[in-house]
Amino acid sequence: MIYTVTLNPSIDFIVRLSQLQLGSVNRMASDDKYVGGKGINVSRILKRLGQANTATGFLGGFTGKFVEDGLAAEKVTTAFVKVDQDTRINVKIKSQQETEINGQGPVITDEQLSQLEQVLSKLTSADIVVFAGSAPTNLGNQVYKRLIPFVRETKAQVVCDFEGQTLLDALHYQPLLVKPNNHELEAIFNVQLHNIADIEKYGRKLLSKGAQHAIISMAGAGAVLVTPEAAYFAKPIAGQVKNSVGAGDSMVAGFTGEFAKTADPVEALKWGVACGTATAFSDDLASFDFIKETYKKVEVEKL
Amino acid sequence: MIYTVTLNPSIDFIVRLSQLQLGSVNRMASDDKYVGGKGINVSRILKRLGQANTATGFLGGFTGKFVEDGLAAEKVTTAFVKVDQDTRINVKIKSQQETEINGQGPVITDEQLSQLEQVLSKLTSADIVVFAGSAPTNLGNQVYKRLIPFVRETKAQVVCDFEGQTLLDALHYQPLLVKPNNHELEAIFNVQLHNIADIEKYGRKLLSKGAQHAIISMAGAGAVLVTPEAAYFAKPIAGQVKNSVGAGDSMVAGFTGEFAKTADPVEALKWGVACGTATAFSDDLASFDFIKETYKKVEVEKL
Repeated sequence: MIYTVTLNPSIDFIVRLSQLQLGSVNRMASDDKYVGGKGINVSRILKRLGQANTATGFLGGFTGKFVEDGLAAEKVTTAFVKVDQDTRINVKIKSQQETEINGQGPVITDEQLSQLEQVLSKLTSADIVVFAGSAPTNLGNQVYKRLIPFVRETKAQVVCDFEGQTLLDALHYQPLLVKPNNHELEAIFNVQLHNIADIEKYGRKLLSKGAQHAIISMAGAGAVLVTPEAAYFAKPIAGQVKNSVGAGDSMVAGFTGEFAKTADPVEALKWGVACGTATAFSDDLASFDFIKETYKKVEVEKL
Repeated sequence: MIYTVTLNPSIDFIVRLSQLQLGSVNRMASDDKYVGGKGINVSRILKRLGQANTATGFLGGFTGKFVEDGLAAEKVTTAFVKVDQDTRINVKIKSQQETEINGQGPVITDEQLSQLEQVLSKLTSADIVVFAGSAPTNLGNQVYKRLIPFVRETKAQVVCDFEGQTLLDALHYQPLLVKPNNHELEAIFNVQLHNIADIEKYGRKLLSKGAQHAIISMAGAGAVLVTPEAAYFAKPIAGQVKNSVGAGDSMVAGFTGEFAKTADPVEALKWGVACGTATAFSDDLASFDFIKETYKKVEVEKL
């Protein structure tokens, strides 16, 4: 079974107006509310791929209920720990510019953190846990230094989709997959990456520090997979980017779902690229049909 | 019985951050969610005054449920018509400046509008209906030209807390009370008001156009009540303004609640001033104890 952990889910509240006037009363032209959270996105894509999985983490209040109802509508299995304060609302203002105002998220008690560990305590080596996204402010990302080893003690695999120091810290626990983009990889090693050879070289450094597989995504320039045995380049697929939100999460879902079934990293890369690309070319997370169609266009070459 | 009608309630989502950077990802320092809506504020204050009343209008979705749960927690009686789309969320950003981004509100169908009329159809001359605030965008404020005469045909009284043309239109139906502030009164008659005598003069114009009573509030400069027989000045009360949101609604509640009991406009003015002032000096709507305390400081003189 695959589990996804989202410690700080959200309602993404999209607010559109032609011009935002600071210091004034403005009126929305339109708005939408979406279920948000990186691990939750992974669960939704896995579900569309027909892959059984359970989404867990923390949810609270009437906003948490919105998230849970949204997942139930898509028949995603959930095992969230209930918290007292409301799940956050992230405001995304689409006006002359795009401006985000993200919430801190609820305060999580020790008791609630233990309840999450309870959910994760029955894992075996047949399970994979996807950790993705940042933690609520009161926990801080250091909580992953508690949760990841906790999961690894059960012999389950972990996938760690983080940035910066949190990602570096995670390498210590031999994640099945990490997936920085090229800019995040540059930041981690404080270097400039000029070509695919550079990407492969620093991707391999992630493996030397513990990762079992690393995908380095490069937006419109394709992606590189580094495995212990080899490295692979997935060519970019032409198309119109509609929405980059959730594309990385979709890639994680595609890779993890396929790897769980076949343990074939190259085939897993192909599905990762198909899911990530299809979502980038969709208004919301990609449909299964569109992912299948995109999969046919994926070309991978060994480096 | 007093009814309050709020056609477009809201969640007021207060978002605080030290600096809002347009075009970037910002993080909230803190946030709060409040039940919003002018008629709803009137109901909440009436309830605190011990005055039986029913709040009606339109509510929808999980945001509507937040509003209904909030009113239930204060034991306010409600009879809202359920609509399909979500009750709006108004975002109030408190940063270097205060910036509001208000939602349009749900689409109201003819069927739902008829259901609201159903709620209002059993009124008698013993009832008062408070109409306050603007309508959802798809209805437009012209809907009041249908709802107010509908209520007046039952012989119930109406209180109309609107601005501009909507207020002018309402005068046609002999409202028990209208309550523009001095700036709104200036805008309505396209004049500049220099002193209390001017205020009284143009307040009396509201009566000549149909209003039974008019209160003209002047923020920190007191308020004027114009009745068919006389005019009265309520002196300003010294204190620290914490929150002007809901102060006008509190004034409407104080006047209407007292007038319903005693039909004494001067006593009603005193309670209106007490409620409005107490709310302005509170973080949220004023408590009954603070209203009582403030009432003792109200001084009214006949003009």
